[in-house]
Amino acid sequence: MFVLVNLKAYPCDPVEVAEAARDVADASGVRIAVAPQAAHLDRVAATGVETWAQHVAPVAHGSHTGHTLAEAVADAGAEGTLLNHSEHRLKLADIDGALDAADRAGLETVVCANNPDQVGAAAALGPDAVAVEPPELIGGDVSVSTADPGIVEGAVAAASAVDPDVDVYCGAGVSTGEDLAAAADLGAEGVLLASGVAKADDPRAALEDLVSGV
Amino acid sequence: MFVLVNLKAYPCDPVEVAEAARDVADASGVRIAVAPQAAHLDRVAATGVETWAQHVAPVAHGSHTGHTLAEAVADAGAEGTLLNHSEHRLKLADIDGALDAADRAGLETVVCANNPDQVGAAAALGPDAVAVEPPELIGGDVSVSTADPGIVEGAVAAASAVDPDVDVYCGAGVSTGEDLAAAADLGAEGVLLASGVAKADDPRAALEDLVSGV
Amino acid sequence: MFVLVNLKAYPCDPVEVAEAARDVADASGVRIAVAPQAAHLDRVAATGVETWAQHVAPVAHGSHTGHTLAEAVADAGAEGTLLNHSEHRLKLADIDGALDAADRAGLETVVCANNPDQVGAAAALGPDAVAVEPPELIGGDVSVSTADPGIVEGAVAAASAVDPDVDVYCGAGVSTGEDLAAAADLGAEGVLLASGVAKADDPRAALEDLVSGV
Amino acid sequence: MFVLVNLKAYPCDPVEVAEAARDVADASGVRIAVAPQAAHLDRVAATGVETWAQHVAPVAHGSHTGHTLAEAVADAGAEGTLLNHSEHRLKLADIDGALDAADRAGLETVVCANNPDQVGAAAALGPDAVAVEPPELIGGDVSVSTADPGIVEGAVAAASAVDPDVDVYCGAGVSTGEDLAAAADLGAEGVLLASGVAKADDPRAALEDLVSGV
Repeated sequence: MFVLVNLKAYPCDPVEVAEAARDVADASGVRIAVAPQAAHLDRVAATGVETWAQHVAPVAHGSHTGHTLAEAVADAGAEGTLLNHSEHRLKLADIDGALDAADRAGLETVVCANNPDQVGAAAALGPDAVAVEPPELIGGDVSVSTADPGIVEGAVAAASAVDPDVDVYCGAGVSTGEDLAAAADLGAEGVLLASGVAKADDPRAALEDLVSGV
Repeated sequence: MFVLVNLKAYPCDPVEVAEAARDVADASGVRIAVAPQAAHLDRVAATGVETWAQHVAPVAHGSHTGHTLAEAVADAGAEGTLLNHSEHRLKLADIDGALDAADRAGLETVVCANNPDQVGAAAALGPDAVAVEPPELIGGDVSVSTADPGIVEGAVAAASAVDPDVDVYCGAGVSTGEDLAAAADLGAEGVLLASGVAKADDPRAALEDLVSGV
Repeated sequence: MFVLVNLKAYPCDPVEVAEAARDVADASGVRIAVAPQAAHLDRVAATGVETWAQHVAPVAHGSHTGHTLAEAVADAGAEGTLLNHSEHRLKLADIDGALDAADRAGLETVVCANNPDQVGAAAALGPDAVAVEPPELIGGDVSVSTADPGIVEGAVAAASAVDPDVDVYCGAGVSTGEDLAAAADLGAEGVLLASGVAKADDPRAALEDLVSGV
Repeated sequence: MFVLVNLKAYPCDPVEVAEAARDVADASGVRIAVAPQAAHLDRVAATGVETWAQHVAPVAHGSHTGHTLAEAVADAGAEGTLLNHSEHRLKLADIDGALDAADRAGLETVVCANNPDQVGAAAALGPDAVAVEPPELIGGDVSVSTADPGIVEGAVAAASAVDPDVDVYCGAGVSTGEDLAAAADLGAEGVLLASGVAKADDPRAALEDLVSGV
């Protein structure tokens, strides 16, 4: 299982979370990455944790002001990037373009989508993975195992039908080790988390509980 | 073959083109539809020609100002709608939502895309058809048979791999009967045209030449 | 006072509301306009009521698919257009471009904004009027006279400081004759309404009550 | 005069340009700032040069993935931010929201606009400065003194009429000391540059030539 911790624009200390993620990954052997604000990539990568960007723009080097260049986030230490998160929906053509940009910069990619049809569409664009974010689970306390688990199975089936090489992650409804185990049982090969770790009183303890489910 | 004439925001007389399309469709037996501005749907549909919208929004009845409601265009006579045209790119989630809206309103759907990967992605969302618009052909004088024909074949293969029920149209590089025949040879089951008819001195003659390729 | 009834994407019969608005305007001498979906402009204008568009795009005649052309809505009978409604926010440069488009097509313009600063900004672009939509009043039952009335006075002051020729309308919190009188007392020269008329059991009665406040 | 060097997404070494800018600013006494990619803010600020962001989003701390948080860029060393650059146009309401975000984070602000009307609108939102980018000068070799200089004077007049405290910068058509002097003569209190420095063979020499015009 891959655990990707999205720090969004939360008021957490990105380095504190990064150090906890690095230590828990080292101790447990579970792959954990942290996706901070672009302006914090440098310092997060300096902790040694696997570092991801939250977004890259569908652009190459050139006249693009205020758009996040894939090469720049890679240069700052990012090894992968989220794309099309439900808080940053992209045009279909721009997901395609951003995947090209990420490839040029050597970034691994996860494209988010909120139902099996969109998961299939995202998979057709050739990312490394897709993340299904069941709308009823985003930002909530409902676990993926108690909410309709069929959406994760549907996502796995949809991605597999289009391209069996594309992994499926569960992008919402995971905050405990039990949730993570439930996601794995449904066929997910990774999970996206945010507030469960970033807003936890003790991010390290939250991560330890989480990886106990692997 | 299906011939869909997109009037865009051209300064043509939509009723004149509609009447020509109706007459040529009747005389030739080729299916021809006309997609005018939303404000012109009523008068175009009144000619008896098959009438399409250029876009519908991913919304249902409700508080949505200035967004084109699928039910309203159907009410004005539209039988189908383009979506995600290269001049009106949509977010992946909004293509999905607009397809739902079109289904509710009973509209046939064609989702545009500009390469085989995006065609596959669009097909995964379950439209009636996808239209591939090779970027090098959009708005130009180069025919699809002289430019790289592989992109149409690639689009047909990509759509078919995802969902064999989704038709593929050629969305650029068609202006003559010869081009239309070339598109059909490459596996397209329809073509999108715009300036070749809408800006022609004699739209009726342009359409007659076109359908001679069927 | 100018009363502009925005039908949004509501499931009302646009012709029924238009005929009611026409009759109430005739009987009361109050200027009333109706803004339907673009696809319904033709039939609304045919009733004889003053007809407005909900939006026009910042484009001229040309290759623009699915964008609402100012000339087309004018052609279908629109005499004015809303722009930048809170349900259809536009880029600053596009408000400017859409105002140019509306001018070319002979359309009167109202630019919406949700606080005095934005009203001042909108006024600087030279529309005929701006409409202030206090966020706490949008779509609600709270009247502008009981909610903070300072925002309307602030909008009137902001517009006047930038361009005294720009009228200020009250874009939310008006549903009764009393509300309309309160808006006029605060300096508004018009009101925007939507659900209060479009979703009323008896749109005619709702309009009659409303104009009783003039 | 304030000289703001926008590195856009150019393939330059941001630290090399930053060091040159710092040294030329120190030697000349002219205020010079550098605006790199968000992911490069840390290392640019570490050089000691005044550092700016290219954009911040209209959001506060919270669930916002992939949007540039004002507090994060300030934390990484930014002292100011561009907004609404012609390569990143924003909705009117979002310029207003991004100015609020920048204020909360203690960032100085420059809002770009491409004609005097939009400059007036931007000024009404209360930024520290506005930058006028005459479209015919963006990215080109034509200097502001040989192209229509009236647009800069018009921008200065428009901003001053709305709010005399808002400075006006010239956002295009400046690459030499002569251009800078011409911009100052037209009433600009600063200039925005990009390729003239970022793509120069010798950025230091380019900056030295530039400040010779003060």
